[in-house]
Amino acid sequence: MIAGRVTIEDRLAIEDLYAAYVSALDERRYDDWLDLFVEDCTYRLVSRENYDRGLALSLLSFESKGMLQDRIFGIRETLFHEPYYQRHLIANFIVTPDVGAFSVQANYVVIRTKSGQLSEVYNTGRSRDRLVSTPGGLRYVERVCVFDSELIPNSLIYPI
Amino acid sequence: MIAGRVTIEDRLAIEDLYAAYVSALDERRYDDWLDLFVEDCTYRLVSRENYDRGLALSLLSFESKGMLQDRIFGIRETLFHEPYYQRHLIANFIVTPDVGAFSVQANYVVIRTKSGQLSEVYNTGRSRDRLVSTPGGLRYVERVCVFDSELIPNSLIYPI
Amino acid sequence: MIAGRVTIEDRLAIEDLYAAYVSALDERRYDDWLDLFVEDCTYRLVSRENYDRGLALSLLSFESKGMLQDRIFGIRETLFHEPYYQRHLIANFIVTPDVGAFSVQANYVVIRTKSGQLSEVYNTGRSRDRLVSTPGGLRYVERVCVFDSELIPNSLIYPI
Repeated sequence: MIAGRVTIEDRLAIEDLYAAYVSALDERRYDDWLDLFVEDCTYRLVSRENYDRGLALSLLSFESKGMLQDRIFGIRETLFHEPYYQRHLIANFIVTPDVGAFSVQANYVVIRTKSGQLSEVYNTGRSRDRLVSTPGGLRYVERVCVFDSELIPNSLIYPI
Repeated sequence: MIAGRVTIEDRLAIEDLYAAYVSALDERRYDDWLDLFVEDCTYRLVSRENYDRGLALSLLSFESKGMLQDRIFGIRETLFHEPYYQRHLIANFIVTPDVGAFSVQANYVVIRTKSGQLSEVYNTGRSRDRLVSTPGGLRYVERVCVFDSELIPNSLIYPI
Repeated sequence: MIAGRVTIEDRLAIEDLYAAYVSALDERRYDDWLDLFVEDCTYRLVSRENYDRGLALSLLSFESKGMLQDRIFGIRETLFHEPYYQRHLIANFIVTPDVGAFSVQANYVVIRTKSGQLSEVYNTGRSRDRLVSTPGGLRYVERVCVFDSELIPNSLIYPI
């Protein structure tokens, strides 16, 4: 990493981070997923409509790694829900140097598969994230997923 | 850029161009989108069936940057339509050296989200584009999107 | 290629292989598709449910290039089926060095378009492949596509 620049190695390291993120989430390896965030992190899932108007209301909003851990505990233990599979595709990265590390924008689609049903488009939009370089590699400081639909899926359980 | 070769830097610059294209279009920054084309450009959106048979009939066909500007003017001012969101994912690039710069093929999917509705697959296919190197960076000389469906969506308003 | 390491050139060569795979399959250039496998190869398409439980039952299972050729012969000559178009997007690659060459995991979605119908999500999941370096470039030794849906599409004809 060279301050204020994005090298080829940086680009590939960033794509590696997203691939690890996607793999951990889609395969339900939630501890691996948590490891990709620094302690003092934020995660938001917000509709495009609210985001564009600067409204704070989010479908999911976590303001520390502890809150992410709570969500995972909820998924595993307390949240009553019908399980479903998620499959992410993230592409078309725009990387810009930022304080500490990088800002990264990308487009994503998540395909959902419920038990005994066909796969379908579940959530799509773009992410606007901030990464930081740590001794263990790149990590998420902030992740904001801005989804296109105004409809709030009535059972969004797992992070995007 | 080295004539007749595709360097790693070229590859990343090409992916950057597509990411900028996708971001501008999906976020409706149409002036930014227009900037990615040279003056003497062509843009076509054509069904796979017609394309494979060499038929000229296209769903959209623009033969200069002026015609692209007209379309944007239409989108903003004159075309009566129900707005919808588009979300592109473009992947699996095949880059070959070409006169002036590069030919690029890629697969794409566009997810559409209408107001108050769920997101759905809208248009999918491959693009076959020609890029040229300019002082401002890579630009589109020709963009041809070949979509798989024979159905012509009755309200395709925005470029793909 | 450097034993035990994944260089930038390797990464791009791997992405090139997948782009060639996708292009050959989606454009029905099946001979080009076959050329991407070594003689002694395996191909499996298996549900996530069976894969996770270590069950051998696969929707498609081919244990040599000859069996892949048989399938292509079937597609062209003997399998009675209504043709449909496929469109792959493969993204978020995780590459690890392996004996001989590389292990590659990636997420994929295939969009299907039937004649006179709209495009729709057809099959999604992840692939877990092994590649080997040959004088002609990287080739597939093993390709395993693990799809998320428990439903078996009743007319899966073409490889994924």
